[in-house]
Amino acid sequence: MAPVGPRSGDAIFSSIDRVNAELFTLTYGAIVRQLLTDLEEVEEVNKQLDQMGYNIGIRLIDEFLAKSGVSRCVDFKETAEMIAKVGFKMFLGVTASVTSWDADGTCCSIVLEDNPLVDFVELPDTCQGLYYCNVLSGVIRGALEMVSMKTEVTWTRDVLRGDDAYELQVKLLKQIAEEYPYKDDE
Amino acid sequence: MAPVGPRSGDAIFSSIDRVNAELFTLTYGAIVRQLLTDLEEVEEVNKQLDQMGYNIGIRLIDEFLAKSGVSRCVDFKETAEMIAKVGFKMFLGVTASVTSWDADGTCCSIVLEDNPLVDFVELPDTCQGLYYCNVLSGVIRGALEMVSMKTEVTWTRDVLRGDDAYELQVKLLKQIAEEYPYKDDE
Repeated sequence: MAPVGPRSGDAIFSSIDRVNAELFTLTYGAIVRQLLTDLEEVEEVNKQLDQMGYNIGIRLIDEFLAKSGVSRCVDFKETAEMIAKVGFKMFLGVTASVTSWDADGTCCSIVLEDNPLVDFVELPDTCQGLYYCNVLSGVIRGALEMVSMKTEVTWTRDVLRGDDAYELQVKLLKQIAEEYPYKDDE
Repeated sequence: MAPVGPRSGDAIFSSIDRVNAELFTLTYGAIVRQLLTDLEEVEEVNKQLDQMGYNIGIRLIDEFLAKSGVSRCVDFKETAEMIAKVGFKMFLGVTASVTSWDADGTCCSIVLEDNPLVDFVELPDTCQGLYYCNVLSGVIRGALEMVSMKTEVTWTRDVLRGDDAYELQVKLLKQIAEEYPYKDDE
């Protein structure tokens, strides 16, 4: 039997949108494993993943603003929708929804319908307490800080911990007034 | 002035092939930074990146075989071409070329035309000796081991170290005979 001819790299690359996501997933898994080996304490790993995410977020926001066409959001509500509907789609290829707003519109939940970070992942018993996807909360925190919003981002549901979805709570702590002379409405 | 309307996440995601590559680049940068902090010795970081790559490669080969349509390569020469032309394109979106074959066809160089891992990267003086992209050599080594080829993969040129290209030398050390009853030609 002659070997089946390969499809060209170009054809493959253009027909599979999420190929890089596979590599990303495995690479992210390698980071978590590395941190677990080096740091030992699960709580330290959570912290480190969050910090890594923060460092990524403060740079990724530039890419987001440049490519998305999004300029400024009117308020925190619009911001949360942008993260869920545009940000997650743009970077991870998944959509998310915003729920559970509090009365004054400063705290909500972002629920992930799909989470490419956790493909193939199962946590061993020794990793109880690990927030495997903690890089994501850090990314959001870092990105929002660059657009003048100080937030606290925490996981409230995590499938790897037995919950039925991935849910991040995003709480606006402080909005730093921008100093540019925005006088568009005058 | 009304805010400029955002393009939908779908439209962005489908129009930019390498969006995940940006996130991947920043995430990879975060790993390297983390390892430099934790391990201190540059030589240890090189080793660890290679090992991470190996762990990724032994899993990524499944994805490659499943999606590429490539079945078996006739020889090491065809294998090297597959890595350069299909593998790099499929996972990183770049093409590479194979050069510098030795007389008996067991050693060659893969030259990268573009390298998304190093976007935005500059090495400080304290990182001399670092093979920043060492994860790639590990990936190739791991992936080839899963298809019965024991190899040694080393960087021979590295732009971050002042060279004019990225070049990996891939040396076939041993080809383990496959034990399946491949009798297609009988």
